[in-house]
Amino acid sequence: MNISARNHFPGTISKVDAGPINAQVELTLAGGDRIVAIVTNESVGNLGLAVGRQATAFVKASWVLVRAGSESIRFSARNDLPGVVERVEKGAVNSEVAIRLEGGALAYAVVTNEAVLEMGLKPGFPASALFKASHVILGVRD
Amino acid sequence: MNISARNHFPGTISKVDAGPINAQVELTLAGGDRIVAIVTNESVGNLGLAVGRQATAFVKASWVLVRAGSESIRFSARNDLPGVVERVEKGAVNSEVAIRLEGGALAYAVVTNEAVLEMGLKPGFPASALFKASHVILGVRD
Amino acid sequence: MNISARNHFPGTISKVDAGPINAQVELTLAGGDRIVAIVTNESVGNLGLAVGRQATAFVKASWVLVRAGSESIRFSARNDLPGVVERVEKGAVNSEVAIRLEGGALAYAVVTNEAVLEMGLKPGFPASALFKASHVILGVRD
Repeated sequence: MNISARNHFPGTISKVDAGPINAQVELTLAGGDRIVAIVTNESVGNLGLAVGRQATAFVKASWVLVRAGSESIRFSARNDLPGVVERVEKGAVNSEVAIRLEGGALAYAVVTNEAVLEMGLKPGFPASALFKASHVILGVRD
Repeated sequence: MNISARNHFPGTISKVDAGPINAQVELTLAGGDRIVAIVTNESVGNLGLAVGRQATAFVKASWVLVRAGSESIRFSARNDLPGVVERVEKGAVNSEVAIRLEGGALAYAVVTNEAVLEMGLKPGFPASALFKASHVILGVRD
Repeated sequence: MNISARNHFPGTISKVDAGPINAQVELTLAGGDRIVAIVTNESVGNLGLAVGRQATAFVKASWVLVRAGSESIRFSARNDLPGVVERVEKGAVNSEVAIRLEGGALAYAVVTNEAVLEMGLKPGFPASALFKASHVILGVRD
């Protein structure tokens, strides 16, 4: 697939809630993880997004936050996918953190090296990939 | 213009669809390319966004994806502007890809070096700049 | 707090406007600065977001634009927090700009080194942190 987003999550559309301008679309991945996307109603119509349809959710790694530890805070970001850190690739300023989700998919987040240190992120560490529904792009095959 | 967004697209507002909270605003650039922005209704009122008004769309390069090759996938991102890669500036981890759009404007995307390699991005290569309507900021002069 | 967002803005919810899918939530920080977030209605319900409730706004530094100088342009981004540049940390490609807001909080933006040069950003320089309401994640303690 020739698209520069680091995260590709293929799945099946399990819910579509249409509003006046935007719709909320839920995608269930093969392993059971669920991703919510906010897209325009025009996209719902143009792409034929409907329950049961195969689709892929695309999310740039820079749009993903990492949440770790036992946290007493709940977040408004609709996507908060729990998993375990599998790999941390450190760059000069940022690191790419790969999280193996419960359902088996890999999620990538780009975070600062500072955050990696402060949060003690390393392989085996439980962590969630957190991103807003409005940051998800859906794609369908014709 | 003193604003740190890499992409500045000046144009004329060609459509405004208001919903209860958000509005969808279409901007037509001088060369004919169209950009769709989702902004709050309060912004439509405060900025006086209306058909025929001059405005500029601002988009950070990190919110732009690059799509390349003949693709049988369609995307929910409302902005999918076709063009040709003009320049690829490689950094340590990421590259900045400049795409000359059909209408003549330049669009910038920051993507990983890995994506540049995998997609074979280089000058002369057809590619699209893909970004969500909700990632566009509109600006108007007083 | 174990979350990889650079910007943490604790405050009190001062307004909630619900639409059919999304709601607009205003948070007033201790120093008086106001941040607007667009979240789904489901989040409003799940998190119990209501006027008077304590909450924290999370924004990744890469989602924040810096606006500087006397600008005759107005923007659709609902959050345009004025302040003074306190620090610029230069990396290979990007710099992190710390802006001390009027109310006392620090806002962080990641911008290109090119933008820092062009805009002449340096300590003592008046600048605003600009970000869209749809890019704000709200968190509440249980």
